[in-house]
Amino acid sequence: MNRRIGDIVTQTFERLRPKAKSLIITVYGDAILHHGGSAWLGSVIKLVEPLGLNERIVRTSVFRLSKEEWLASSQLGRRSYYRLTDLGRRRFEAANSRIYFHVSQPWDGRWTLVITNTADIDSEKRDMIRRNFGWIGFGQMASGIMIHPDPDTTVMRQVLADLGVAEQAVVMTGGVEAGFSTAALDTMIHNCWDLKRLADDYTEFLDIFRPLWQVLSASGELDPQLCFVVRTLLMHGYRRALLRDPMLPDELLPANWPGTSARLLCRNLYRLVQAAAETHVMSVLETAEGPVPEASPNYYTRFGGLQAGD
Amino acid sequence: MNRRIGDIVTQTFERLRPKAKSLIITVYGDAILHHGGSAWLGSVIKLVEPLGLNERIVRTSVFRLSKEEWLASSQLGRRSYYRLTDLGRRRFEAANSRIYFHVSQPWDGRWTLVITNTADIDSEKRDMIRRNFGWIGFGQMASGIMIHPDPDTTVMRQVLADLGVAEQAVVMTGGVEAGFSTAALDTMIHNCWDLKRLADDYTEFLDIFRPLWQVLSASGELDPQLCFVVRTLLMHGYRRALLRDPMLPDELLPANWPGTSARLLCRNLYRLVQAAAETHVMSVLETAEGPVPEASPNYYTRFGGLQAGD
Repeated sequence: MNRRIGDIVTQTFERLRPKAKSLIITVYGDAILHHGGSAWLGSVIKLVEPLGLNERIVRTSVFRLSKEEWLASSQLGRRSYYRLTDLGRRRFEAANSRIYFHVSQPWDGRWTLVITNTADIDSEKRDMIRRNFGWIGFGQMASGIMIHPDPDTTVMRQVLADLGVAEQAVVMTGGVEAGFSTAALDTMIHNCWDLKRLADDYTEFLDIFRPLWQVLSASGELDPQLCFVVRTLLMHGYRRALLRDPMLPDELLPANWPGTSARLLCRNLYRLVQAAAETHVMSVLETAEGPVPEASPNYYTRFGGLQAGD
Repeated sequence: MNRRIGDIVTQTFERLRPKAKSLIITVYGDAILHHGGSAWLGSVIKLVEPLGLNERIVRTSVFRLSKEEWLASSQLGRRSYYRLTDLGRRRFEAANSRIYFHVSQPWDGRWTLVITNTADIDSEKRDMIRRNFGWIGFGQMASGIMIHPDPDTTVMRQVLADLGVAEQAVVMTGGVEAGFSTAALDTMIHNCWDLKRLADDYTEFLDIFRPLWQVLSASGELDPQLCFVVRTLLMHGYRRALLRDPMLPDELLPANWPGTSARLLCRNLYRLVQAAAETHVMSVLETAEGPVPEASPNYYTRFGGLQAGD
């Protein structure tokens, strides 16, 4: 049975082909953030070794992530410690609220437009606006006009502030007038977001992780290290689809939306492996003051509620 | 005194330099529409002769207006009759409601967006949308996205239908969110509408017509033909500025907006000359059944109410 699990994990690796930097980001967001967000590099290297990452590649990745302001390093004696920056923490919190805490709620029919197509924003800044708003699910309706049917307005205001364009943005909220064609609205939605590609991504995610669920849910006790690997790959795969997901209200999605099944599979597999995965993280990860702190209480509210281990 | 009036009318001509076709449009909208909308070409030629238009140029103009679907012609014996088409009538009614029946009302803060930047509208059609929505005051927020703070929604729906894009448009209404910079909103308004140029147009209109008001309001009885000329020039000059005016709510306009004074001058001068001008129109204009009908009752509601002549 363990042999079979091992084969399926290997297949999962082969299908996902995760990049090192991206895996490190996933590990910081999924496994380190809720244990204080800071760790000795040596323990991070040991933690991610079963993910096929060697020391050199981890050092290169964390160095790059420092350049990109996700991480900041400090040196104590001969040891390097990498902690999340405030900006990195905010980026994770924005992403994590969508990954772990999404609750489907009735939609009030109000759209939000962020209008920044004013003369005094240069094209480079406009491109940053487009990308940053894309990360929080906004679609581009036209150059400098981003739209979302149900944004997290706190995150939206934070992104405007982080980009330094809060003073140059006009934010409008409103509804679509009745009495016009719904086909036109569908076309608008498909112009703003690539839902076809997103559906393909979710379908691929389901294809990759359904076999893991089948084999692991049928097993008895699970190996902590294996569970850490599975949880990390699961989050890596789910993030990849989800971070392109604008989280449109159900009312605006096509029928049989595969994102719904993907979320369910992700929740179930996460719940199955997380306690053992946490055991592994706690046994490996170290700060300058010794083992990392216990998971913050917030951790146990992921995916509608997790059970603490042992 | 009449000599002085004549000089000022001549100066007005020189400053306005009206184009023939544009004058004919003004005459159909201001003087013929409310007398049934149809007239013998010979009587139109006689009517506009004191505006400096000769027979040849009138024939060329009405021919062109037929090509542009404003007018349609019919022949009875050797006489040609030109009547407004349904489309021409709708265009005039849209324009006239803004010229004669504008009432400044408190604004509810709701903007209207007409979104047609979908894949299946070609650039030629997009350009038509931009121009036609421009005529009813909409500003272009981005290619394929027209905006107005307080549109006439009946006219808006009619324009969408006339352009054949009602099925491809998404219409949204909504308000600007509080807590953002009002400077950004000002910038947006100036990006969507050329208010500087419009203010210049209104100021020029005031410069041109104030002298006429001064001299005519101080005169005794006024010559009907002269009044027809003055009324036509007045409408020509006012239309020219007004038809570029998006009619933004007072709340969104700069302080000391010259459009307000222009409207007042236009109303007062119109009221002063219209009864005599109507006498002239009734004495010259002919249909196939003889003199044109009396002014429709709606005519007397222009500019908040006109007095019938004699």
